[in-house]
Formats: sequence, C-alpha cells, structure tokens
Amino acid sequence: MMIDRIFQEFSRKSGMPPGSVVPVGEKRDQPTTIRYFHYSEKDYTEQEYQKVTELPDDPGVEAVTWVHVNGIHHPSILEELGTKFNFHFLVLEDIANTGHRPKLDDWDDYLFLITKVLTYNEKTSLVMPGHFCIICSENRVFSFQESGPDLFPLLRERIRNGKGRIRGKKADYLVYALLDTIVDGYFSMLEKIGDRIEELEESILDENTDEAFHKIHVLKRESTVIRKSIWPLRDIISRLEKNDWFIEDNTRYYLRDVYDHAIQSIDIVETFRDMLSSLHEVSLSFNSNRMNEIMKVLTIIATIFIPLTFIVGVYGMNFHYMPELEWRWGYFVVLFIMFLIASLMGCYFKVKKWF
Amino acid sequence: MMIDRIFQEFSRKSGMPPGSVVPVGEKRDQPTTIRYFHYSEKDYTEQEYQKVTELPDDPGVEAVTWVHVNGIHHPSILEELGTKFNFHFLVLEDIANTGHRPKLDDWDDYLFLITKVLTYNEKTSLVMPGHFCIICSENRVFSFQESGPDLFPLLRERIRNGKGRIRGKKADYLVYALLDTIVDGYFSMLEKIGDRIEELEESILDENTDEAFHKIHVLKRESTVIRKSIWPLRDIISRLEKNDWFIEDNTRYYLRDVYDHAIQSIDIVETFRDMLSSLHEVSLSFNSNRMNEIMKVLTIIATIFIPLTFIVGVYGMNFHYMPELEWRWGYFVVLFIMFLIASLMGCYFKVKKWF
Amino acid sequence: MMIDRIFQEFSRKSGMPPGSVVPVGEKRDQPTTIRYFHYSEKDYTEQEYQKVTELPDDPGVEAVTWVHVNGIHHPSILEELGTKFNFHFLVLEDIANTGHRPKLDDWDDYLFLITKVLTYNEKTSLVMPGHFCIICSENRVFSFQESGPDLFPLLRERIRNGKGRIRGKKADYLVYALLDTIVDGYFSMLEKIGDRIEELEESILDENTDEAFHKIHVLKRESTVIRKSIWPLRDIISRLEKNDWFIEDNTRYYLRDVYDHAIQSIDIVETFRDMLSSLHEVSLSFNSNRMNEIMKVLTIIATIFIPLTFIVGVYGMNFHYMPELEWRWGYFVVLFIMFLIASLMGCYFKVKKWF
Amino acid sequence: MMIDRIFQEFSRKSGMPPGSVVPVGEKRDQPTTIRYFHYSEKDYTEQEYQKVTELPDDPGVEAVTWVHVNGIHHPSILEELGTKFNFHFLVLEDIANTGHRPKLDDWDDYLFLITKVLTYNEKTSLVMPGHFCIICSENRVFSFQESGPDLFPLLRERIRNGKGRIRGKKADYLVYALLDTIVDGYFSMLEKIGDRIEELEESILDENTDEAFHKIHVLKRESTVIRKSIWPLRDIISRLEKNDWFIEDNTRYYLRDVYDHAIQSIDIVETFRDMLSSLHEVSLSFNSNRMNEIMKVLTIIATIFIPLTFIVGVYGMNFHYMPELEWRWGYFVVLFIMFLIASLMGCYFKVKKWF
Amino acid sequence: MMIDRIFQEFSRKSGMPPGSVVPVGEKRDQPTTIRYFHYSEKDYTEQEYQKVTELPDDPGVEAVTWVHVNGIHHPSILEELGTKFNFHFLVLEDIANTGHRPKLDDWDDYLFLITKVLTYNEKTSLVMPGHFCIICSENRVFSFQESGPDLFPLLRERIRNGKGRIRGKKADYLVYALLDTIVDGYFSMLEKIGDRIEELEESILDENTDEAFHKIHVLKRESTVIRKSIWPLRDIISRLEKNDWFIEDNTRYYLRDVYDHAIQSIDIVETFRDMLSSLHEVSLSFNSNRMNEIMKVLTIIATIFIPLTFIVGVYGMNFHYMPELEWRWGYFVVLFIMFLIASLMGCYFKVKKWF
Repeated sequence: MMIDRIFQEFSRKSGMPPGSVVPVGEKRDQPTTIRYFHYSEKDYTEQEYQKVTELPDDPGVEAVTWVHVNGIHHPSILEELGTKFNFHFLVLEDIANTGHRPKLDDWDDYLFLITKVLTYNEKTSLVMPGHFCIICSENRVFSFQESGPDLFPLLRERIRNGKGRIRGKKADYLVYALLDTIVDGYFSMLEKIGDRIEELEESILDENTDEAFHKIHVLKRESTVIRKSIWPLRDIISRLEKNDWFIEDNTRYYLRDVYDHAIQSIDIVETFRDMLSSLHEVSLSFNSNRMNEIMKVLTIIATIFIPLTFIVGVYGMNFHYMPELEWRWGYFVVLFIMFLIASLMGCYFKVKKWF
Repeated sequence: MMIDRIFQEFSRKSGMPPGSVVPVGEKRDQPTTIRYFHYSEKDYTEQEYQKVTELPDDPGVEAVTWVHVNGIHHPSILEELGTKFNFHFLVLEDIANTGHRPKLDDWDDYLFLITKVLTYNEKTSLVMPGHFCIICSENRVFSFQESGPDLFPLLRERIRNGKGRIRGKKADYLVYALLDTIVDGYFSMLEKIGDRIEELEESILDENTDEAFHKIHVLKRESTVIRKSIWPLRDIISRLEKNDWFIEDNTRYYLRDVYDHAIQSIDIVETFRDMLSSLHEVSLSFNSNRMNEIMKVLTIIATIFIPLTFIVGVYGMNFHYMPELEWRWGYFVVLFIMFLIASLMGCYFKVKKWF
Repeated sequence: MMIDRIFQEFSRKSGMPPGSVVPVGEKRDQPTTIRYFHYSEKDYTEQEYQKVTELPDDPGVEAVTWVHVNGIHHPSILEELGTKFNFHFLVLEDIANTGHRPKLDDWDDYLFLITKVLTYNEKTSLVMPGHFCIICSENRVFSFQESGPDLFPLLRERIRNGKGRIRGKKADYLVYALLDTIVDGYFSMLEKIGDRIEELEESILDENTDEAFHKIHVLKRESTVIRKSIWPLRDIISRLEKNDWFIEDNTRYYLRDVYDHAIQSIDIVETFRDMLSSLHEVSLSFNSNRMNEIMKVLTIIATIFIPLTFIVGVYGMNFHYMPELEWRWGYFVVLFIMFLIASLMGCYFKVKKWF
Repeated sequence: MMIDRIFQEFSRKSGMPPGSVVPVGEKRDQPTTIRYFHYSEKDYTEQEYQKVTELPDDPGVEAVTWVHVNGIHHPSILEELGTKFNFHFLVLEDIANTGHRPKLDDWDDYLFLITKVLTYNEKTSLVMPGHFCIICSENRVFSFQESGPDLFPLLRERIRNGKGRIRGKKADYLVYALLDTIVDGYFSMLEKIGDRIEELEESILDENTDEAFHKIHVLKRESTVIRKSIWPLRDIISRLEKNDWFIEDNTRYYLRDVYDHAIQSIDIVETFRDMLSSLHEVSLSFNSNRMNEIMKVLTIIATIFIPLTFIVGVYGMNFHYMPELEWRWGYFVVLFIMFLIASLMGCYFKVKKWF
Repeated sequence: MMIDRIFQEFSRKSGMPPGSVVPVGEKRDQPTTIRYFHYSEKDYTEQEYQKVTELPDDPGVEAVTWVHVNGIHHPSILEELGTKFNFHFLVLEDIANTGHRPKLDDWDDYLFLITKVLTYNEKTSLVMPGHFCIICSENRVFSFQESGPDLFPLLRERIRNGKGRIRGKKADYLVYALLDTIVDGYFSMLEKIGDRIEELEESILDENTDEAFHKIHVLKRESTVIRKSIWPLRDIISRLEKNDWFIEDNTRYYLRDVYDHAIQSIDIVETFRDMLSSLHEVSLSFNSNRMNEIMKVLTIIATIFIPLTFIVGVYGMNFHYMPELEWRWGYFVVLFIMFLIASLMGCYFKVKKWF
C-alpha cells in the first residue's frame, strides 16, 4: 500500500518524450467537473461546466476568475485547458502526475503550485495524499483537485454572500484562502491521528503486544507520509510570501499566518514521531518486564520444588538397607525438613525482591 | 493529555474567514482583569479595570503605559481592545489561540510577541504551558496572560517604589523586564523537573522497573513540551535585540542577558533529555542484569539437582535384579557420589563466575 | 561483493603519474561500439564505427553531433578520442575509473559530467551501478557507457523520425534527454526494490527470522549503494541549470523537471531506508514476542507439573510408617488435590493473562 | 550531584532587579586574594592585596597591569572593583554567577570573557567546572578565579624572570597566555578521564556488569559536562581572533594555536563519547552472550536428563504386570539405552555447536 | 592503545612558554635523514645529508628545491631548520607534535600543511596515523615524515628520469604530487580494512559471537581514527585550491582530482561505518535467534516430558489401594496414553512452527 502511494507518479515510460500528459493516479469513475467563479467587489457569477470549450474567455481585468477542476484523470481536459490558456506542457504533466511532490514554480506569466490534501481513512488507517495544484496569474486562479468531495463549500459561500474580505481583494487573496483551507484541513486529519496515538498510549499496558507493535509501525509509516507532504510547504509558502509581482503587501500578513499554521502542523507531526518512538520503547520495556515476571514465577516454583523432588526421590529408592525408612517418625521428619527448606527459599526470594 | 495540549489551538473551523477571535483554551471561570499602569521617572498611576471602555486614552509621550490583561477567554474584551487601539485582527486571533507557538512579528506600528509561561504541576507531573503575548509600541506595552496567578508582583513593586532603573527607562525596558521575569520562571520550573530526575536516578536500582520506565517516559514527554516552548525564544530575543526602532542601545545589553538565560535554559532541557536517555539505557541494563541473575539461580539449582534426581530415580526402579540395591552400604555410597557430583558442579559454576 | 563495488576505482598504483588511463571495472568481453549521430532540424545521419579514426570531423556549427561509446574497457579508444578531440587526460582517467563518484566539472571548452546508471539484478539481489559519463561542448555530445544493453532506443527513435522537440533543439537539450532517460531508469529500479520491501513487509510474520534479518540487511546495503549514486545528482543538475554558456534558457525548465525527478528518487530511497529500519524493529519485536510466547508455554507447563510431580514423589517414598498410604481412598484424595492445585494455577495464569 | 552543578547559577529570585551581585557557588571559606602584577619590558612589580581600595590606580600606558582575583564569593569585592574600574553591573553579575556558560562580550571599552577551569576529582569521579572570567582593556587584564589552588605559577615565574616573550608584549599576549594555560589544563584532565576509559575497556570482560554499566553512565555524564564547558570555546576564541582593537596582529598566530588546542580537546571529548557508546554496546553484547552461555548449559543438562528421568520413572511404577522388570538383564539394558540416548543428544548438541 | 594514540600530542607542560620544540611521538631509533632534491626542466641534483648545516643555500629562482626530512624526533634538527630557513617556532612546534590534527596555515611567506600518513598494521589490527607536514614557498618544498619507510620511491624516480610532467612544473605541482601519493596510500589501507570487514561479514554466522562483537568494536574504533585523520583533508585541499599566490591555474585541475579522491576515501570510511553498524545489528539478531532456537529445544523437550514424568510418578506411588496397578494391561495402557500425549504435543508444536 505504502509502495503504491510512493510510486503513484512513475508511469511515464523511460525514454518517452517529456510532456506526455498521462495521469497516473487510479482511474476513478467520478466525472470531471469544472466550476467557474467570476467575482468583483460588487458582483459575482457562478457556473458549472463539463467541457473546457464552454469556459468563457477572460472578461476583464478588475474581476477575479476562479476555475476549479475536480478530477484530473481525463488527460483531454488538461490538454484543452493548456491549449486554451497557454500553460506549458511540463506544468500539465506535473498536474497529471498525482504523486509529484509539493513545489512552487514561477513561470513568469503565472505561478504554479503543488500541494497535498491529506485525508485520513479511518477504516484502512491510511493517510491518503490527494494531489492539489494551483495556477495563478494576476486576475485568474485555476485549481486542480485530484478527486474526492468538495473541499471549499464555506469559501464559496463567503464569495457568494460577499461577507468577509474576499470579494474586495485580488486573486492573491483567493490563493491564500485556498491554502488556508487546505492547511486547516491538516489539523483535523492530525487530530484523528492524535486520537489514535492517545488510544494506543492508554491501552499499551493491556494490549496484545504484537498488535501494539504493528499499530505503532503503521502510525509511524503514516506520519512519514504526512511529513513528506507537509514539510515542503514551509519553503513554498515562504517563497510565495517573497514573490513580488503576484502577492500584494497586505496579503503577506495572511500568508505569514498560513506559514505559522504550516509550521505548527510540521511541529505536530514531529511530536507524533517522538511520541511513537517513545511508545515503542515503552512497549518494548513492558514486554521485557512481563517476560521477567514470567521468568521469576518459573524460577521460584522450580527452585523451590526441584530440591524437594530430589529429597522425595531419595526416599523412593529401593535400597535394602536405608535406616531412615525404618524410623517411626522418618516420614514426618522429612516432611518437616522439606517445609523448612521451602520456607527458607521463600525468605531468600523475598529478600531478593523477586516477588 | 499530551494530545490535548498539542491541539489546544485548532478549534477554528476549516474554511471560516480568518480573524475570527475565538479563544480555544479551556474556559476558566476566573473573570478577566485589566491592570493599568502609567509611570514616568517622577510619577506613577495604578488602576484596575473590568471593561476596556473604561481604559483612559494615551496621556502623553514621555510616560510609559502598561496594560496587563489577565484572562483572555472573553473574546469581547480582545475585540474591544483591538478596536480601541487599532490592532490587526490576525494579532487578536493569535492572542486568543492559546496554543500558538512563540513568535515575534513586526507590524510596523507595534511589535507582537508570543511566549509561553511554563508551570509545573507537581500533582499531575505535567508542565502546563500558559499563553503570554506582548504588544508594544513606543510608549505603550500591552501584556496578555492566559490565566493563573499574578506573575509580576515584584516588578510592580519596583515600579511603585521607584527603586531600580525601571522608572527612568522607556517601554523597551519594561518589555525586557517582563521577558526576564518569564525566563527566570523557567528556571524554577526546570529545577522541579531536575529534582524529579535526580530522585529517579537515585531510586532506579530499588524501583519497580515498570514504574521507572513510565516515569522516564513521562519526563521525556514533558521535556519535549518544554523544549518546544523555549526553543523559539532563542531566535525571538535575538531578533528583538536587532530591532532598531523600539529597542534602545542601552537596553540591548539587558536583552543579551535574557538571551544568555534563554540559551542556558535550552541547554538545561537538552541535558535533561540526555540524562533521561542515559537513565533509560541504565535501567534497561539493570533490568536485563536482574533477569540474568534470576536465570543464574534457576540454572544452578536445576543443573545441580536434575542429574541427582535422575540418579535417585535409577535406584527407585523396580527391576528384580539390581545388584547395587542389595549392597550393605549401597545407599550411602550413592549419597556420597551425589554429594561429590553436586560439589564438582558447584566448583565449575564458581570458576565460571556464575555466583 | 559490496567491498568489490566500493573499490572498483582504486587500481591505479600509488605514486604513478596521474592521467594513466587504466580502466578498472571488470574486463568484459563485449566489444566497444561507437555510435555516431549527426542531426539538425531537417536532416540526420547515423553510423556505427569500431575505430576512433573513422569518426568524421566536425561537419558544421548548426547541427548537433552525438557520439555514444558503449564499453570503456579499451584504454586505446579513450586515448585516441582524447587526442582527436583534445580532452584533458584527467577527464579520460575519470571516464576509465568506473568507480568514480558522480560530479560535474567545467573545463571551459566543455562540460564533463559523471552519473551512474543503476540496474537491479534480481537474481543476485544486487544493485549494479554502471559508470556513465557525458562530455558536451556547444554542438557536440560524447556519452560513455560502461557496458550493458543500449539505454536509449526510444531517444534514438525520436531523433530518427523527427517527432518531439529534439531535432529542433541544440546539444543542451540532448544532454537533458540523456539525463532524463537515466533518472527515469532509477524509478523502474527503485520499483523493483520497492516490490522486494513490500514482499518482505507482508511475509515478516511467517518468515524464518534469520532469513528476514538477512534480507533487511541486504536491502539496506543496496539502498546505501543507490543513495551514494543518486545523492550527488541533486547538486550536479542544480549546478548544470545555473551554467550560462551551455544551457539555453528554455532548456532550463526541462532540467528543473529532471531535478524534481532526481529529488523524488532521493526521497524514495530515504523512505525505503526508513521503512527498512522500521521493519527491522518490527521483526525484532516479533522475534522477542515469539520468544515470550514460547517461554510462557514452558512456564505454564512447568509450574503446573513441578508441584504435582513433587506430590506423587512424596507418596512414592518407601517409609515404613506413612499413614496416608493405608487409607482406603488416599489415592483418589491425592488425585483430587492435585487436580485442584492444577486448576487453581490455571486460573491464576488466566488472570495474569498468560494465555 | 549533576543537577546541583547544572543549577549552580539560578539563585537570583525571579522578578528581582537585574544586576544584583549575588554569588551562587558554594560558599567556600577560602579568603579572597587579589594579586597585582605590573610589568613592562624593563621592570615589574608584584603585590598581594586583601582589599580593593588598596589597589593602585593605573600607573601608565606602556606597562601591562594584571589583577588576579582568587575567590569570587564575596560580593563586596566585586562591587568595589566595579565601582573603581567602572565595569557594568551585568558583567559583575555574570562573574558572580559561577554557573554561567562560557561567552565573549565586547563592551566597547573592554572585552569580557567567561571560560571554565575543569578539574577531575578522582575520588568522586566528578569533573568540577570552575568559573573563570577575564576582563581586558588595552593595558589592563583582570582575571577572576572561582576558587582553588593557583593556576598560573609558571606564567608568573616567566613574568618575574623576564624569560620568554611575555614581558615585551602587550595585554593581549597575557590574555593569550591565560587561555593557553587553561586549555592546556583540559588535556591533563582529559588524560585522567581517558585512563578511566582505558581501565574500563580492559576490565569490561571480567567486571561485574552492573558496575560497568554504572561506570559508563557516570563517564558519559561527565563527558557531557566537559563538552558543555569546552564547546563554546571554539566560537569564543575564533571571535577573539577577529577582534580588531584589542588583539594585535602577531598575537593572532598564538590565538590560532590555542584555537587548534581547543578543537583538539573537543575532538577528544567526542572520541570519548564514541568510545563509551561503543563500550556500552560491547558490554551489552557480552552480557547477552553470557546469558546465552548460561542458558545453553541449562538446556544441555535439562534436555539430556529430562528424558532419562522419565525412563527411570517408568520402571519405578508399581504395576503388577510389567514384563521388563522380571528380565534378568533388564536393569542393565535400560542403563545402556539411557547411555545411548545421552550420547546421541550430546552429539546433536555438538553438531549444533552448542558447546 | 586508542588512548595512547589520542594523547600523543599533549606532552608540553601546562604553563610552559609556547614554541618549545618537543617531539612527543615515541622515540624511534631510526636516525633522521635529510633528502635534498633540486631540479628544473633540464637538470636535477640529488643528495642525502645528516646535518642541516650541510644543506646548500637556495641556488636560484627557476629551479625547485625539495627537502624531505624523515624522522622528526630530533628537536635540534627542526630548530636548525627553523633558524636557517626562518620558520616560525609555532610551525616547528606543530611539526614536532605528531598528534596534531591536519590543518593548513597561510604564513604569508610560506604555506604550512599537516596531513596524516595512514598505515594498517595487520598484526595488531591497528591503523597507525603517521604525522606528515609540508612547508612550501614559491620554489621550495620541505616535507617532514614522522618515521617509517620511504613513501615516495616512484615520485623520486619520475623526477630522476624526467618522464611525466613534474620536471617542467613549479613547486605547487610537487606539493600536489606529494598529496596525491599520500591520498592514494589511503586506498590501499582502506582496502585492507575492507577485506577484514568482508571476512567478518562472511564468517558472522559461524563465528563465536563474542569474538565477532570484539572485532566489530575494534574495526569501528579504527574507522573512527581514520575518519578523524581524513575528514579535515576535504577542507584543507579545497582551501589550498583557492590559494592565489602559490597554486598556479593549471595545477588547480590536479588538486581537484586529489580532492575527489579525498572525498571518495571519506565516502568509503562512512560506508564502512554503516556496514559495521549493520553487521553489529545483524550479529545481535543472529545471537538472539540462536538463543530462541535453544530455548525452543528446551521448551519442546521439557513440555513433552514433564507431564509424562508426572504420570509415571503417579503410578510409582505406594498407596495400598490403587486399582489400575492390578489391571492386566494397565502398564501398556499407560505407555500408550503417554505416547498419545507426546504425539499430540508434537503436533501442537509443529502447528505453532516451533520446529
């Protein structure tokens, strides 16, 4: 499963010309939808299209156009978009390669940004990284979501009813709003992982250890996946903040806020890793302690009874001449001696703090 | 508990507009108090308010105004302050998010600084990080304390009686004094943790190991919490020192002093972590040694008595023709032989240094 | 085997003059082939030579010449090439030293680049790094492959049928195409390693542990070999991108793409190492758990039967006066008592969760 | 003990005004001595004072004045010095705080330098870091030693008899000479620790392991203390070397020499830590090996005798009809069979290399 | 032994004046030899001297003078050289301190360079670092070898017969040739270590584990020694390459080649360390596996026979009324039941995969 997620990207055949737009994520049956938003401070238009050709041309400089493509597994749609809006085919290739790591490229006319939407599937205990790309130029934002449910219902609502600042701002604020929503989404995902870790921490004593080790291993693996997706954000947002032709001065404060949140989520992942390592150690220690306890019981029982069994064996011998056997109270004397030996050994173990 | 502390911050719903001032720490019943100090070299005023509207306007440039808000769980108070004194709502949001990591932002008109007040709860063995924010402009300092008892009784006393340098200095010296008090507070907290570690080190031999492992795990976790709170201070104070419009030249020496203390406390936390790792190793070693000792006892007892028990078993057999049984001294000869075997084995173990 | 691969390079005798072109890879019987390509937008020539002297001189500035040498174990060929095209003998030495680490040198007239072609031999489970060097000047590219099958059939095909961009571009694009093919080759190699790791992860529970440890050790060793070969690429491509006399502006985008892929493959190797470490830990834990289980069975059996065996031993003693022996139901009473003891112990172990 | 040494510094009460000169090292009964040296190329004066007021004023620019204060636990002396020679009270505070980490501060008029004198107490096996401070201006050097015996008898001798270069040089050379003596002192201390480690390495096989683990733990802890004291020197001397108003050009070569020695001693401490980690691993391995050996003996004895004991048990049963019992040679046949079984098992264990 | 090698340097008494030329390596009986070479493109002179005073003065600018001193344990020779050729006594001190770490100092008139010659003593399994220093000015090179056999017979031969480039080059090429020979020597030393590691890897399964652990420990320690000697070379050669008054442009390519080799040898040492760590883990795992196997045998034998022994014990009791004893086939029934129990247990263990 891990290996699949790692190798999502590499389906392009070695030696083939670059720029072949071949989506490599699993083909999902969900049809591709294109949501078109066009808004300015006073007005807004909203429309849903199935085809790229239906998309209206750029209607003016003042307003912001947001095209959201959900479902990037139809290469034709990407190619049509590329042709219509003049995107480099290397960009289209990177959008289609759903396993590409997060990055920010400045293509002079537009910025190209890859991030990951992380969702935690509680049934399979897997973190599924969803590919999410943004292409933004001065007054146009294209966002590409690999698949899955709508991520921005609240954001859309804010645009529609004109509350908040978004309608009065440029495209850079929209990019901020998208990133903010995605990074906020990390926290709810991390919270679910956090709950798992807490459950594990509480049950570590009762748990069957093999299962606990396996759970720790799985959570560690997942936190590696998360880390790989979130870590590059630190650098990306920081570079985005420094961009001088797209980001306006008063948006910079907001980006700094997203940056803080991204770092916070990185911090949380690192804390999780620390805690999981510590839990691993603790459960190893518990394990070896339990082993010790078992050994102690065996040792106490064995060391007490082995000598006694020897003694009774001695008087089970069939020698013709064994004077003790004839003694009237021989049997009881031996019983008493054995009781004495057992008691002494018990005291010895007590002193040694073996129980 | 750990997970709770990590996730204190993230209650803002994903997709909501930024700047919603929603405090996310536990609601505490303690009412919010606003302490107002106004002092210059000659004079000082002190007042306690419940409402922001009652706060006097800025009375002049020469004097320093210090507004200390204890209890930030009433969003209305933060919002009123923001309106009255013109703070950006992102700043207010960060004050309300009690889980926000320490940072320093320069908002041109004012500096915004987040630190953590760390208190060690000896009953629960938990380090509780308290949110503490400072907003400072040229002659005004606002400090926000999440909750808890007054942290600055001595500082207030120094302002009142005009001793020390504070009355003759500007607002930057007050900020230094606040930071100094907070960083000094780290040491008493660290000392308590240090005492715990020392107790642990001394009792590691006698202690029930499961308990020791648990204690080490808890202390390690707590030192992770502390480190996360103190570590960013290094960078924050260093950047504060370099600030050129708020910090005056002769205050820089004092900040360097706080900086030294912050680094010292980071050093101590790192030393604690080293010691805890080392203690973990030592107690693992002790554990495995104890195990060894137990095994040795079992082995000695078993290896001595198993052959002897075999011998007495031999002469317990009921064969009709067993010549030894009829010998006059057969019984004693066998007893002697067994004694000989046991002695030889004892010597062998002695040579092998098994006891 | 590892050691052999590490020391491939060092056959030059200490103290000998530098620049002695002595190939140090294993001598392979494969004859050296020299493939000559000469193409411009309109036209192309293709030829295969055995001797350097047969190579045509440079036929013009507009066209690109690509000379591909497969098999570098004949020093004479390298020396002739060096003489004919005026390469520094240190460059020739580095081509012949098949163990040299990847690097990029700027020799003013030409760039010299060393990379590794990595192939995974599934039979021996070894990653075989193949030496691959590129010398490129403004309109000429020389590539040197240590040995093995043709790596660029698709690339050659693209040149022949004039599809794609390659025929219309300069030599820098050819260098990009070569690097792209090599880096893409890493992914198929990594995928094979990934499959091995996945197999291992799935079988770790059933596997004989000694074998599992050995496999993990081997895979770790191989990922060290890979890492050493891929890691320097990051720096090399990044420096190549910054070159100002060979790389043209529009090729830079393509190199950035190769750079992304190189980093991705480094990421994958690091993930593999993480996973292997984690698997090692998991299999250690499983191992110690299995040990625990075995110990538990021994302990349960032994602690139940040792006291019972003692009891039956008691009544096997031959004392003349043992009242219980004469009792009518003595035998059954003893059997019942023993059954009671065994049951009580079973309950005790059940409560202790030993089974 | 560790914790004590860590917390030496923090006795200043939180919230108190900065600059309170409160020495926090243990009060020692040793009285404070002030050694006054005044020398130029031709002449020198030497004097010992008890009081600061007795100290002569600065007698001229050409000569160098060296005031050495041994015993800094009398705050009054520090305060008087501060008043007389105009030192900042933060400097005095740092001199009094014997736990302050090494640092170099440039106070424009003078340099302030903190280092540590390390002595190894062989009885307690503790490295005691002694506080050592230097204040130096163009022709005056003040050195402050926490306590203990005279560190510079040879240096003083060199000044007295005018041999070596020191009399002809400025104050910067004196500072170099002090640092050189201190750093040289590290080596003799490290040599003692090194001897301990070597002893440990040689005795690791014979040693009681609990004791060995404890010794390794103690030595590790001490090397942490040393490292913390020496590590900052690297940076301090390097910055001192770059100072442009105090250090003269031809003294820089000497400082570079001290710098080399400081790095060498850091190297040694790191090597010690490596060796101790390796020793820990080795002794863990030996421990587990010894455990193995013990287990093997138990297993061999038990697995040979358990089946034999079963056999003799069989013929100890009291069934009325057991044909073998009546056979003439039954007893000897059984003895022979048991011998055969034991021999076969012995061979099996031999083949398995269990002994 | 390790400790000795670490502390080779520190014999200078603390507090003594710097610059006392006291060689601290073991005194070897080998007499000091001084080899004098003087060559230009056309001509060369070779001479061997015993005394410094016999050395001819500098005979001209065009030619290169190479003075090679083998055996630096006679302080008088160093001092005479220092006087005659005007070297700083700190340089002489560093030459005499055979434990000094590698470094490069620029003394304006000449460069001073320390490296290490590493030889592997196969008998003691110790890597012996030999001190090697170079002082070079525009047309003169002085090299100082601690002791041992001639390192440069081939180089000398190349000078004599005028083959190769060396006769036509300046002193900087000679320095390159010396460094090249030394670095090449590392590879043959590393190859010997590599052979040891490979032997170890192959025999790890058969080996007595205590011995294997010891060998791994020794090899790790040696690789620490090597690393410490080679690591600084990276920085030294890189700085030498950047030198602008001694190194000529066309020599820079050669230095880059040595640099590559130095990095390669660092790479190899790091790979060795990785492999040794991995081997340590593997042998720990094998060890614990073997332990498991032993435990399994014990457990199988014990758990099968303990219940059987109990049963035969039951029928060995001497109760007067035990009905089974009188049954005709009682004995055989019991034998059969015991066979059944043993078989069932065998199956159970088979299913559990215990053998």
